[in-house]
Amino acid sequence: MTQSPLSGPALLQRIDELATISEEPGRLTRLYLTPEHRRANHLVGTWMRQAGMTVREDAVGNVIGRYEGERPGAPALMIGSHLDTIRDAGRYDGMLGVLTGIAVVADLEARGRRLPFAVEVIGFGDEEGTRFQSTLIGSRALTGGLDPAILETRDARGRTLGEAMRDFGLEPDMAALATAARRSDEVLAYVELHIEQGPVLEALDRPVGVVTAIAGATRFSVTVTGTAGHAGTVPMTLRRDALAAAAEMVLAVEDLCAGRERLVGTVGRIEAMPGAVNVIPGKVRFTIDLRSDRDAVRAERADALRARLAAIADRRTVALDIEVLHDSGAVACDPGLMEQLAAAARAEGLEAPELPSGAGHDAMAVAPLCPIAMLFVRCERGISHNPAERITAADAEAGARVLARFVEDFVPPVPHA
Amino acid sequence: MTQSPLSGPALLQRIDELATISEEPGRLTRLYLTPEHRRANHLVGTWMRQAGMTVREDAVGNVIGRYEGERPGAPALMIGSHLDTIRDAGRYDGMLGVLTGIAVVADLEARGRRLPFAVEVIGFGDEEGTRFQSTLIGSRALTGGLDPAILETRDARGRTLGEAMRDFGLEPDMAALATAARRSDEVLAYVELHIEQGPVLEALDRPVGVVTAIAGATRFSVTVTGTAGHAGTVPMTLRRDALAAAAEMVLAVEDLCAGRERLVGTVGRIEAMPGAVNVIPGKVRFTIDLRSDRDAVRAERADALRARLAAIADRRTVALDIEVLHDSGAVACDPGLMEQLAAAARAEGLEAPELPSGAGHDAMAVAPLCPIAMLFVRCERGISHNPAERITAADAEAGARVLARFVEDFVPPVPHA
Repeated sequence: MTQSPLSGPALLQRIDELATISEEPGRLTRLYLTPEHRRANHLVGTWMRQAGMTVREDAVGNVIGRYEGERPGAPALMIGSHLDTIRDAGRYDGMLGVLTGIAVVADLEARGRRLPFAVEVIGFGDEEGTRFQSTLIGSRALTGGLDPAILETRDARGRTLGEAMRDFGLEPDMAALATAARRSDEVLAYVELHIEQGPVLEALDRPVGVVTAIAGATRFSVTVTGTAGHAGTVPMTLRRDALAAAAEMVLAVEDLCAGRERLVGTVGRIEAMPGAVNVIPGKVRFTIDLRSDRDAVRAERADALRARLAAIADRRTVALDIEVLHDSGAVACDPGLMEQLAAAARAEGLEAPELPSGAGHDAMAVAPLCPIAMLFVRCERGISHNPAERITAADAEAGARVLARFVEDFVPPVPHA
Repeated sequence: MTQSPLSGPALLQRIDELATISEEPGRLTRLYLTPEHRRANHLVGTWMRQAGMTVREDAVGNVIGRYEGERPGAPALMIGSHLDTIRDAGRYDGMLGVLTGIAVVADLEARGRRLPFAVEVIGFGDEEGTRFQSTLIGSRALTGGLDPAILETRDARGRTLGEAMRDFGLEPDMAALATAARRSDEVLAYVELHIEQGPVLEALDRPVGVVTAIAGATRFSVTVTGTAGHAGTVPMTLRRDALAAAAEMVLAVEDLCAGRERLVGTVGRIEAMPGAVNVIPGKVRFTIDLRSDRDAVRAERADALRARLAAIADRRTVALDIEVLHDSGAVACDPGLMEQLAAAARAEGLEAPELPSGAGHDAMAVAPLCPIAMLFVRCERGISHNPAERITAADAEAGARVLARFVEDFVPPVPHA
């Protein structure tokens, strides 16, 4: 008896095989438009063909398999995620979604099943942005959302994206890039399966969860300026210590987010200058990353935070400068698709809790094209972007079965008014 | 009419002339055993001779001028400070003490005045430790307090102290070094005039102050270990944020020192790892510098601080590691000499407040040899170790007049039991 394509061990075996394609021995690093990208597309394309799909590569190097429906040329349900990685990456981030999509189609093919719509599986070439520091190139190309200037972006070795595309066998001009864009009447919906990259499902003891939205994020760079001085000679009462002020601000970020559902705030970087054991810091720079799946919550808390930081700075007579580094709204998942994912989980005997995605995903960039949905699979201790990233075969299989059921029972959402 | 050697403008003119001896054009950098050290010793030696002193260089490169008393070979009152600098230094730190000492002797010489004791003025070759990262080599040599291993210490270019001594014309062996040590029966006391390097005298509106003690210092390196995680995917309730914990600790340092006289605490360095905008810090390392002129206060507060940090770590379930980097006791100034300095100030119409020295000084290293005292001169905004270091000519003159009066009225302290 052959193993079902949906079996957990079968899926993880393919994950492991794909993970051997790396530019660094012993660790997984696979960047956009590199020879490793070429090899990954080739291997994934082979698996797509084995699953009964026709395979093509689009103008930005995404690999796309298509499984026709009952009637050839029908609009498609798209399943996708990415094949590129950060340096020294985990092996599930991105790849699990692509390989599970292929497994779902392989299962349909094995049973000779055709649906009233086509199914497409996409392996995006660039989500992480590791090589060109510009994220989501693969998925943004689907909506024609790329700016011509992007072709001049350079990698660490000084090679432009345009040159890298030519190396890869692609045409680096906007007319060619435009061919990667999809019409909204040919795509019914986009669904992405992805590891959670967080600890919520593990804490709830659930293998899969339904994503409500991809969180919006605001990032600040904060500079606090006090007066540097000798650690031994300036009495406490005469100090304007920039780090003591910044420490209060770090705790204000935490305090403003604590006890709030759907909001997280993080200070990830901090630098005290001049940075000597025996010098009172005269200047401190730190970052704040604020995220929520509700834009109104994020905006209200960002305002409250600015007010708190200003009050701390005033009281301590230090100068405060807050710069917005990044601001992006939340991208909501389609409620109808969310309900179909939850129903598919129930049909598989699973209760799939709802949770926001704090991290960005390809689905974000596809959202202008069609309704989107995401299914999260539990990962060990929430660890991701790390070679220690891990999921169980049972959870991989749970994800595959829920996705397969979702695809088979899929009802296209009613188009937006 | 010739200007008095004690005049402020005359002193500052010499300060400016000495400050031109630098290895870097436009900024003052004069390191131990360099050609600039040689030139500085030469210029200072010339001024010493003009002031009626005999001049020699000792085995570690200190330049020493001696002004005999009424009876040749009498024990000496030593006046000293250092001639080396940090990189891009201020021009008063160290040098003011040496040049004021010479001015005091020049004034005696001009008046043909001999005292019942000799006066020696010492320009130490190394206090800052900029070149060999080992501070106070000059003054430590006076007590025979140098370890043979120090000769193997290397500068940034890989040259050992021993090699540098040979370059300078000194014998790099311990027998030679031992000749720099002074017998306690030939030194009556050591007095050092120095800029305050802090803002206390300015805040009190006094040109000079009498130092009570050179503060003892304890330095800790603290490591807080929590769990790194994605800034978007880990809910606030599931975090073990090492930086939030460290922020509480920074404020605990401040809080424990606030409202305490004679105690200062500083966090000067902090590093959050991995240090990315979108990653919750898993590890934070920071330093604590705790100083007091009372060892008992410092020890008691250090214990209290350890307990507070442990409580913060416990509550946040992060790991805490505290390493002692440095621990040195306070060095008290001689009460009799302090009173003589205060009396000399009063005789010049000045009230000299008492204050501790939070910074280290050559006097610290000389203390095992003889009673010590220090006179601080007000500096602008407490700024030091910076080209913006500044004092007024009036304050330079006030310091010189108080020191001159102190020397002329000097009564040797009763030796310790």
